[in-house]
Amino acid sequence: MAQISFARGIPAPECLAVDDLAECARAALLRDGRTILSYGPSPGYGPLRDRLAARHGVDPARIFLTNGSLQGFVVVAQRLAPGKRVLVEQPTYDRPLKILRELGADVVPLQTDDEGLDPDALEAALSHGEPPGFLYVIPTFQNPSGRTLSAERRNRIVELAREHELLVLEDDPYGLVRYEGEPLPSLHELSGGTIAYSSSFSKTISPGLRVGWFVLPDDLASEIAATATATYITPVLLGQATVHEFIERGLFEPNLERVVGLLRTRRDAMLAGLDEHLPNARTSRPEGGYFLWLELDGVDVAELLPRAEQSGVTFVPGTDFGAGSNTLRLAFSFVSPDEIADGVSRLASALPATV
Amino acid sequence: MAQISFARGIPAPECLAVDDLAECARAALLRDGRTILSYGPSPGYGPLRDRLAARHGVDPARIFLTNGSLQGFVVVAQRLAPGKRVLVEQPTYDRPLKILRELGADVVPLQTDDEGLDPDALEAALSHGEPPGFLYVIPTFQNPSGRTLSAERRNRIVELAREHELLVLEDDPYGLVRYEGEPLPSLHELSGGTIAYSSSFSKTISPGLRVGWFVLPDDLASEIAATATATYITPVLLGQATVHEFIERGLFEPNLERVVGLLRTRRDAMLAGLDEHLPNARTSRPEGGYFLWLELDGVDVAELLPRAEQSGVTFVPGTDFGAGSNTLRLAFSFVSPDEIADGVSRLASALPATV
Repeated sequence: MAQISFARGIPAPECLAVDDLAECARAALLRDGRTILSYGPSPGYGPLRDRLAARHGVDPARIFLTNGSLQGFVVVAQRLAPGKRVLVEQPTYDRPLKILRELGADVVPLQTDDEGLDPDALEAALSHGEPPGFLYVIPTFQNPSGRTLSAERRNRIVELAREHELLVLEDDPYGLVRYEGEPLPSLHELSGGTIAYSSSFSKTISPGLRVGWFVLPDDLASEIAATATATYITPVLLGQATVHEFIERGLFEPNLERVVGLLRTRRDAMLAGLDEHLPNARTSRPEGGYFLWLELDGVDVAELLPRAEQSGVTFVPGTDFGAGSNTLRLAFSFVSPDEIADGVSRLASALPATV
Repeated sequence: MAQISFARGIPAPECLAVDDLAECARAALLRDGRTILSYGPSPGYGPLRDRLAARHGVDPARIFLTNGSLQGFVVVAQRLAPGKRVLVEQPTYDRPLKILRELGADVVPLQTDDEGLDPDALEAALSHGEPPGFLYVIPTFQNPSGRTLSAERRNRIVELAREHELLVLEDDPYGLVRYEGEPLPSLHELSGGTIAYSSSFSKTISPGLRVGWFVLPDDLASEIAATATATYITPVLLGQATVHEFIERGLFEPNLERVVGLLRTRRDAMLAGLDEHLPNARTSRPEGGYFLWLELDGVDVAELLPRAEQSGVTFVPGTDFGAGSNTLRLAFSFVSPDEIADGVSRLASALPATV
């Protein structure tokens, strides 16, 4: 029996527009090869920076392209985290957690619920002690919980950041992968552009191209550019130029619509499976993104995982994201709707009869 | 008057095989797009790893691909340098120097001469104190000096490394860019594969593709892979797959021959200019690579640089590479042979009459 993976937070292979991207890579090189194939500026490929600057309504000097947004997070965290308190959501994306700990940050997890980060918890953390290095937050279709920060809380968090001169890094890789409902303004937008923002084309075009971007305050942008020059000279321009060509040709929007359609089916399959097989489990019902969060009263997920794997399904325990031992993350982005139905049934069969 | 740059250690634009690489990027994506466009393994694109493993006669598990070899150096140095003595040539490539210092290494420069690193200096450094974290050495067409470590010294350094269980990292980006003479075996080869080795396709195909590779001892390779996964997930596969396709199509060797021809003309132009305008300066006469080293008795290069720039030519002072104040690096890789002739004449005109 092949293992069904609810662990892999990656797009299903059919999401990747292989033929179009092959043409775009070729066209980008034929048009601008001598720039793309030589050492470039450390903040990345100029035409894509300009395009993103226009989208965000900021000066291109504030746009910083990286080989995936995680690499940018590392560079930012190296500047801001060592020896500092860094505020994060509980739960949050596991890799930043690990990076922050390795950099010697004092990681402070803040409480969240179905509406995302609790502003009272943020206010409490800001009310005493040294000012934190920064707050790292994923407001929309959060990894791992799939939850979205409510409009009211967004306003309050922006206000708190302003009052306390808190640097906030808003990570928004999933925002455009929306299956239903109306988009909310980003913290970055609500703050008039002062809150730092990161995103990537991993979920809207391709993760393998490794094109992430940051919108940073001016001074931080130039510091980060200097670090980039010193450590990897320039991010890989070919992926960035391919993305630029893809957008230029008008392929971005129709591709996103196609991807969203493919993934919506998967989310629906997972919600249907949970309703059928685990009607009593508390789950998030995300309007977008890759993930769904499960809380199982009285279940030790560390014990559940090996049993689930024996039943042919795998997932990531919530403890990896700094959450309780009765929680787990289910990714619905990678496997097919049929596999999702099977996988949820296998998961249910691995649970104690009481759940 | 446009500035002539002997500072930029980058290939002349006509070295870049733009059209061929455009076709290779397209073909690679059409053949293997679903792999290239998704998250990949942190040590890089499998087919290229296999090819490099075969070239080096090692297990593919020891091959680690990075976004340019400097990024790999950072990851290796993060593991091995903090709080340790790290031995380097004097002079050496400026970016590793800076990275090592920022990581809190105690950087120990070892004497070099026309035959490269002096093994006696290495032996002396090994004879006392804590064992060093590693030795970083560029044996062939060194950056910045253009010098090549002699055969006899290579053997002796390999022997010293074995005796003292010294980890050596041999950086060899320029070895294949040879204009004349017979190649010498690498330290890696002489050591039976135990000495760590790094190189890249920046000088043989394109720097912008950012494809570097490392051949590491087994245990270090798996540690490094874990760090890569934690910080950037996977290097950019598209550049690696494009390089793989370029080699697969038999384009590597003829392209290298063409590039070597273009750069040989530039080296010859620079040597001819120096013979004509600066017959008394001590210069290296490199058989390959990008750089040439100049020692100017009684000249303060920090004072010379602004005068040279006023005359319309620029270069990098030797002090940037940890060398004396009367030294400088001239890169002949970027500008045209005619510009090289002009540039050397301008440089001579900026010098005091006594030189």
